[in-house]
Amino acid sequence: MTQRIKALQGIITPEMEQAAASDGVSAEMIRKGLADGTIVLPANPCHSALKPRAIGRGLPTKVNANIGTSPDYPSHSTELCKLQEVISAGADAVMDLSTGPGIADMRRLVLAGSPLPVGTVPVYQAAAEARERYGATAKMTPDDLFRVIEEHAADGVDFITVHCGVTMDVVQSLRRRRRVADIVSRGGAFLAGWMLHHGRENPLYERYDELLEIVTRYDVTLSLGDGLRPGCLADATDGPQIQELLVLGELVDRAKERGAQVMVEGPGHVPLHQIQTNVELQKSLCRGAPFYVLGPLVTDVAPGYDHITAAIGGALAAWAGADFLCYVTPAEHLGLPDSADVRAGIMASRIAAHAADIAKGIPGALDWDLSMAKARKALDWQAQIALSLDPPLAAEMRKKKNPGQREECSMCGDFCAMRVFSQALGTDLRPC
Amino acid sequence: MTQRIKALQGIITPEMEQAAASDGVSAEMIRKGLADGTIVLPANPCHSALKPRAIGRGLPTKVNANIGTSPDYPSHSTELCKLQEVISAGADAVMDLSTGPGIADMRRLVLAGSPLPVGTVPVYQAAAEARERYGATAKMTPDDLFRVIEEHAADGVDFITVHCGVTMDVVQSLRRRRRVADIVSRGGAFLAGWMLHHGRENPLYERYDELLEIVTRYDVTLSLGDGLRPGCLADATDGPQIQELLVLGELVDRAKERGAQVMVEGPGHVPLHQIQTNVELQKSLCRGAPFYVLGPLVTDVAPGYDHITAAIGGALAAWAGADFLCYVTPAEHLGLPDSADVRAGIMASRIAAHAADIAKGIPGALDWDLSMAKARKALDWQAQIALSLDPPLAAEMRKKKNPGQREECSMCGDFCAMRVFSQALGTDLRPC
Repeated sequence: MTQRIKALQGIITPEMEQAAASDGVSAEMIRKGLADGTIVLPANPCHSALKPRAIGRGLPTKVNANIGTSPDYPSHSTELCKLQEVISAGADAVMDLSTGPGIADMRRLVLAGSPLPVGTVPVYQAAAEARERYGATAKMTPDDLFRVIEEHAADGVDFITVHCGVTMDVVQSLRRRRRVADIVSRGGAFLAGWMLHHGRENPLYERYDELLEIVTRYDVTLSLGDGLRPGCLADATDGPQIQELLVLGELVDRAKERGAQVMVEGPGHVPLHQIQTNVELQKSLCRGAPFYVLGPLVTDVAPGYDHITAAIGGALAAWAGADFLCYVTPAEHLGLPDSADVRAGIMASRIAAHAADIAKGIPGALDWDLSMAKARKALDWQAQIALSLDPPLAAEMRKKKNPGQREECSMCGDFCAMRVFSQALGTDLRPC
Repeated sequence: MTQRIKALQGIITPEMEQAAASDGVSAEMIRKGLADGTIVLPANPCHSALKPRAIGRGLPTKVNANIGTSPDYPSHSTELCKLQEVISAGADAVMDLSTGPGIADMRRLVLAGSPLPVGTVPVYQAAAEARERYGATAKMTPDDLFRVIEEHAADGVDFITVHCGVTMDVVQSLRRRRRVADIVSRGGAFLAGWMLHHGRENPLYERYDELLEIVTRYDVTLSLGDGLRPGCLADATDGPQIQELLVLGELVDRAKERGAQVMVEGPGHVPLHQIQTNVELQKSLCRGAPFYVLGPLVTDVAPGYDHITAAIGGALAAWAGADFLCYVTPAEHLGLPDSADVRAGIMASRIAAHAADIAKGIPGALDWDLSMAKARKALDWQAQIALSLDPPLAAEMRKKKNPGQREECSMCGDFCAMRVFSQALGTDLRPC
């Protein structure tokens, strides 16, 4: 039985209780969200290391970090170091997107080491194996793909990205209305390539009921991938993207009918002024299913700084209602991220999530800022550092930038505005 | 005669032509904006190194970088290195906020070396000199302050921040309605401290006509400082802040009547959901005068990452109508920025400005992104790097992260989505 089916039966599970405690909300709120499909709780019972947490409406915005090998960077131990970075930097979930050798081994190592919900994209493994076995990704069979999906489920994967909405209609629409960047989703490209090669419908769409059977049996949360997500601003919010979203809306309904947990993935590259529209459209077409966005990046021109372009878009998207932000690292569009990139990406996404939580009025979100403001006014550096998003970094920078060993910071020194005005008032620096 | 007076007389000056060429607009558009007070063109005739550029409605959003010594970091040569970084990183203006020894010398060095408009905050020098001469900043006399202002004007400073709106009424309102962080503006704190000490009105307010006489004589653009800008989210958009803004609105009218160029400074720390309100209020109360914002920072909790918290707020503010973004560096709240911090701050602000320009529909803004998208689709790395916001960084990261020396990037390698789908379509990678 999935968490959703239990929720529909009025049952509050231990996983709901743990997720509720983690977010400071009631377990009943989580249960209700699961029942109405606005919250997911990715918690595969086979993932024994998991500390469950929930994603969806009314909850603090969550952050996902992607790790995983690539053909150029096949080391498993390097990725396990990144997993530690993901955990210590405060992400809420991790996806193993490995495409290097030994995908299954890598996944099992990540699952064993991760208290965070773990997501995967099974088609990567199916495509990589087809390439290895038959010499071409397009030679993957639908049965290969479904076998891999069940393997991921049985291993304990908490959520899987499946590009079920890349239908033949959608691909034909893309062929008629070419884009600048066509398809930038790896899973979307594998499937569209397969469909064009075989002249056949997407097996994930055609055999969607079978997929639902697997994910409900294991309680794997579906993350409906957006294979047609825009890969540049010029492609944002275009016909193929929205046509796929319409399909995903129908697939959300079908998943919910079967008791499956489901969320929907979104863009991508979107200009500032289209972000709210994208979120509202998803929420409306997918009946409030949690929205998991990649970025969105608000400009194409800043490789090396895409954690920032994504933080801008992510803050707006989450404020507009997106529930789950996939981080983007400074390495995006340039190569595979290293551990430092992973940390930078998580911190930027956490800023976006927190800023949005304040704007959305998530209870308690502003308390953190108020505590920091009081510590700052009191020139209480110990408290400021402890309250920082990234305490080790703040401590290191304060130490490095304080040659005078003074109570103020080295930007103003004796000219510290807070001190000057407090002295003029005849008060000390403790806040009112 | 100021640029504004000439504009009102229908004269198009060489400075208007140069600023227009720099922004790809007509000189008549700049002239019209100067005449109606929605554009400023900070171009002191005494600043011989200047390449003029304009700030205001309908123009690309501009970015300012602050440099300058502090008591802990008094080196002039270090600040001159930062000035080179400011220029090479693509800022549109620079402010010398020095408070260390030799403020006048530092300013003259910056003016001599800067093709960018240079701004200063004269009260810093007046306060520092009072401290040196009389032992206390509060012992500064109004005549001292006006002498320093004229010195800055005569040296060629293009715009000066003057906290004329910190009136006795505003300070008394602050005393009645204490904030968490009270005053975080150095200039605001000096003046409020002086006013409380002497029980006298702010000389910059009381002698505003004299100030206007100086700035129109030299054509120094007034940047009306927001001494009461919120220093934390809890203080945002509160009574004292808006009361000061009301005063600034009246002072804008008086400046424009005298033919002075004037812009208005704004917050500060503002939650996402209050940014648009802040911009609209300023635009309405100040009759469309250019708005120069510091950030705004959308959370208080991220020291070490405040270039990102400010980029989120800056993008939203600029989209809502702010014209000029003051950068915030990763060092904010921790110490004086070094050259690397300066570069990071400028890049983050430029991202915010460009993202907003796209959203505002500034002509040509999207072309840059389209060129990048086409280069990306074509896997044309030379073009991608040349089109990057920060080409040296992009080149370095591409090199470092490309161990396989391959055409794709090391994130996907053979599994490059764009290549997979293009091959399936039977097309090459050149964009449509």
